[in-house]
Amino acid sequence: MTGRRPVVDLTEEQARRALPLKWGTVPPGVIPAWVAEMDYALDPVVLEALQRALADGVTGYPLFGFDPGLAEAYTGFAGRHFCWAPEPEAVLPVVDVTAGVRVALDVFSGPGGVVFPTPGYNAQLGLAGLTGREEHLLEVPPSADRAEIDLDRLDALLADGAQTLLLTQPHNPWGRVFTRAELEGIRDVVLRHGARVVSDEIHAPLALPGAEHVSYLAIEGTQDHAVAVVAASKAFNTAGLRCAQLVVPDPESRRLLADQPMARNDSHSPLGAIAARTAYAEGDPWLASLVERLDQQRTLLAELLAAHLPDVRMRPLEATYLAWLDASAYGHDDPAAVALDRGRVKVSPGHSYAPGSTGQVRLNIATSPGRLTEIVERLATAWT
Amino acid sequence: MTGRRPVVDLTEEQARRALPLKWGTVPPGVIPAWVAEMDYALDPVVLEALQRALADGVTGYPLFGFDPGLAEAYTGFAGRHFCWAPEPEAVLPVVDVTAGVRVALDVFSGPGGVVFPTPGYNAQLGLAGLTGREEHLLEVPPSADRAEIDLDRLDALLADGAQTLLLTQPHNPWGRVFTRAELEGIRDVVLRHGARVVSDEIHAPLALPGAEHVSYLAIEGTQDHAVAVVAASKAFNTAGLRCAQLVVPDPESRRLLADQPMARNDSHSPLGAIAARTAYAEGDPWLASLVERLDQQRTLLAELLAAHLPDVRMRPLEATYLAWLDASAYGHDDPAAVALDRGRVKVSPGHSYAPGSTGQVRLNIATSPGRLTEIVERLATAWT
Repeated sequence: MTGRRPVVDLTEEQARRALPLKWGTVPPGVIPAWVAEMDYALDPVVLEALQRALADGVTGYPLFGFDPGLAEAYTGFAGRHFCWAPEPEAVLPVVDVTAGVRVALDVFSGPGGVVFPTPGYNAQLGLAGLTGREEHLLEVPPSADRAEIDLDRLDALLADGAQTLLLTQPHNPWGRVFTRAELEGIRDVVLRHGARVVSDEIHAPLALPGAEHVSYLAIEGTQDHAVAVVAASKAFNTAGLRCAQLVVPDPESRRLLADQPMARNDSHSPLGAIAARTAYAEGDPWLASLVERLDQQRTLLAELLAAHLPDVRMRPLEATYLAWLDASAYGHDDPAAVALDRGRVKVSPGHSYAPGSTGQVRLNIATSPGRLTEIVERLATAWT
Repeated sequence: MTGRRPVVDLTEEQARRALPLKWGTVPPGVIPAWVAEMDYALDPVVLEALQRALADGVTGYPLFGFDPGLAEAYTGFAGRHFCWAPEPEAVLPVVDVTAGVRVALDVFSGPGGVVFPTPGYNAQLGLAGLTGREEHLLEVPPSADRAEIDLDRLDALLADGAQTLLLTQPHNPWGRVFTRAELEGIRDVVLRHGARVVSDEIHAPLALPGAEHVSYLAIEGTQDHAVAVVAASKAFNTAGLRCAQLVVPDPESRRLLADQPMARNDSHSPLGAIAARTAYAEGDPWLASLVERLDQQRTLLAELLAAHLPDVRMRPLEATYLAWLDASAYGHDDPAAVALDRGRVKVSPGHSYAPGSTGQVRLNIATSPGRLTEIVERLATAWT
């Protein structure tokens, strides 16, 4: 524990000031457990770096293209945490992960369709369409024992003309960390069709004890057909500061990106870059506390569900602080609406992640043990 | 002058810390006068608002869609400065002005081409192509007495199938403020063809004494075919904080925008929104000093050019802190390269704004009188 910096819970008053979307859009008395933000204070080392930058007046344009300090901080972090790192030159700033995925599709992918496994991150549903590509949903049915990519279905979609797989790993909202063997299986199918992969790895720092994040780019034979999109923002609660990173191992692809019109990718913030650089370089002692806390919260959640909502089905939560709950046994088509109405707790409706689905919700557990207990008790009151 | 807050010049050391792109990418000894950022300290009232927000931990997601505090601050500012304001509901956050233009083209414009007057803002050159539309450059020749939109040529381009005019007003890099009569002339041509206008008005707060900014949306009969993109960021030196505003007066267009997939427009920063809201609501006493300073700088520039570079041609600078100089009398195809090499001053090459052009540069005068004097003396040494 030496040198650890603790996770500090925000009071409700502090959370309302800090998180205008998560807390500011729910009425008093409603507990928000929806959007992926944590009810914890910033790592003080990240906060101090931001305060220094602001005192210096760093509110203008950032370094566009390659930012060596940011890139080296990321490769150091990846080497320590993921046992693999790209060369620094491969790490390029983008405004956020979803914008990075869009750029990657626009610049690197063929015109064919994009395969998007669902339930899938709601902000990326419809993204393929924005790039002029067809979206092919690859659904994990609620009844599946394990949430995984159906390789036969992936094979069929690529055979039918889809050209890109949009992978989310660790997966939101499945809470899965793909194993090396699973990623190799995906690679084999992708290679068979000459397709591409865009791998959104924003939750990689949040692989929980028992799981190990492997970048898709760390799998042999992937680097000439894949890019990853990474960020410190989900683990360090800085999504609003606006800097993610595109990892582009292939030098020819980097040249192609550098030749794009400025407007393709010039919106990241220097404060976001400073937050990311600081988190990657100096954030480990806080991140260790965070992962420990999230590990405790997932255990608490399992206990609370067993006690209050025994018929909710939850697969093991291997990463992220977002639990995917199948509450269909309680008979509500839209259990999120029922939770808000009867339980005064706001969770994310499952149909935002799996279009047309019923009975499921995404629950954010990144809060205090007391608040999580209250949340589950309220869900039980609402649903049963 | 009561209640004014002064403009404070940054020392070179301060400027290198504050402006990593403008100052951080030039070697020691080179004076940067290129990218549109000012060598002035932030308005302390804006800085304090940002410091309070950071102390509160406001680093997460902003309010997406309508942000009432921001919208009302803008309408108040527009009413005081431009004698016209939209209803607050029309004002919607976007990450930056260029992204706002892109969204407007994507969502509101027909598939036909986009007319872009040149010399034109370099970040928006090629933007039409990103949206899948043809780009039609409407060139102002260097020899023109006055920089203005050629209405006959606009008429011909719209008759040939172009469907949108991308207007920049006040214009960068022309330094022009369009008159009401000019805007009415543009409107008449646009209406004749049922075309649309996207009006980038980021420099509106920087109309200098003698000129008055009129929003294109303030012209009768424009609101159902036009949107404006506005921001506090250029006047208040906060471009890196990432929040501009799309002004969409037409309610049906707002509904169309609200129905777009999230990824179309979810990248602005809460710190950018706070900076904008504070600047609009409380920034007048600082802005007045800034406009006074820029007025003095344009006078100084004219005097310096007359003394040191009498054969440089400069049209009257009516707005912005960006002077467009025709230095072709000195015989250099790329006077920006010569300035950097022989004069150790970095100005923006004209061909970035007017593809294929020679002999022109854009010069940023938002610095101290001493530094501007040194810049012009160095240009004279380099070019003559």
